[in-house]
Amino acid sequence: MKVYGHPMSTCTRKVLTTLAEKGKEAEFVLVDLTKGEQKSPAHLARQPFGVVPAFEADDGTLLYESRAIIRYLDRVLPGTSLTPSQPKPYGFMEQFIGVEQSYFSPAAMKIIMVELFHRGEGSEAAARVAEGRQGVEKVFSVVEPVLGRQQFLAGDAFSLADVTWMPYLGYLGATSAKDLIGKYPNVSAWWNRISARPSWKKVAG
Amino acid sequence: MKVYGHPMSTCTRKVLTTLAEKGKEAEFVLVDLTKGEQKSPAHLARQPFGVVPAFEADDGTLLYESRAIIRYLDRVLPGTSLTPSQPKPYGFMEQFIGVEQSYFSPAAMKIIMVELFHRGEGSEAAARVAEGRQGVEKVFSVVEPVLGRQQFLAGDAFSLADVTWMPYLGYLGATSAKDLIGKYPNVSAWWNRISARPSWKKVAG
Repeated sequence: MKVYGHPMSTCTRKVLTTLAEKGKEAEFVLVDLTKGEQKSPAHLARQPFGVVPAFEADDGTLLYESRAIIRYLDRVLPGTSLTPSQPKPYGFMEQFIGVEQSYFSPAAMKIIMVELFHRGEGSEAAARVAEGRQGVEKVFSVVEPVLGRQQFLAGDAFSLADVTWMPYLGYLGATSAKDLIGKYPNVSAWWNRISARPSWKKVAG
Repeated sequence: MKVYGHPMSTCTRKVLTTLAEKGKEAEFVLVDLTKGEQKSPAHLARQPFGVVPAFEADDGTLLYESRAIIRYLDRVLPGTSLTPSQPKPYGFMEQFIGVEQSYFSPAAMKIIMVELFHRGEGSEAAARVAEGRQGVEKVFSVVEPVLGRQQFLAGDAFSLADVTWMPYLGYLGATSAKDLIGKYPNVSAWWNRISARPSWKKVAG
């Protein structure tokens, strides 16, 4: 198996965390975003939209879209399943992967891109950070009661839903929005719980 | 089962198409978007982000995020599975649900919102339509060779991936971007194939 990506990329990190949770390693092929390699013909042949990651299975199957790759890996690899077998937690897992993609990561990335990747400056960048904070707060207020009832987003077991949120939470903790995590006690306890996992320490360490 | 939504909403249509494919009916509860009912306290209790659809299972489980609801329905309802059992087409299904959410629907909706729902006008709206066309063309150029090798997005069987693309294709056909479907023969043949399904005729009819 090969993962084509960048170690700092949030979507690459979803794939690497899933592999670590399954106790598997893939060959890591660096696509150097600082050199624009994601737009190279070689990478576009794997990922036609010119972003990372892309994945190559041992049978040559090429896949992209991080949330598709992690579902595929969870299905094909042995080890503890990261997908609940019961309908209700399965539905919640999918719902919260959806909330990550629709609401959480767009809001979090507004802050992360400005503060950690230095995209934009001045009042326009400050407005984007403010907008991002508002979005992150909305999302945290939605998951706060859920995480008071259960240990993880899908239910009482760690799942792919938690995996998809981790890269953004990890970066948010290094921005001015770090206080927002502390403001929601259940979100904060959950983040402490999942970020202590060996898989995340391996990927973000 | 109850579906809270609006018959014109693309995301509501994904849920209704899935139900029709599974040969099931749910009680349909209209959330009147023209009256802003999606922001009412009653609806926010079901869908905290104030959009449609939301879903209520017979056991009282509440779910939102259309792509989560359709995966849940496909898993719990009897009838033909809309999720491939083999890893490779399963991966492709998830990849193309991802492409719909990341690239296809954002581009298509730029055109649809301006031309069918009359959001925006003048040169700003025209610029958004032009941007939307460019995005839709990129996506069609990516799936064109795929749909030359296989009948459906995931492989040789209709799947949830096709379901997620249908509402946008249906509306695009009523916009100035209709010509783009015709420009890609495999996309065009696939759209003719899937839009002829009784499920789609029932939902869009």
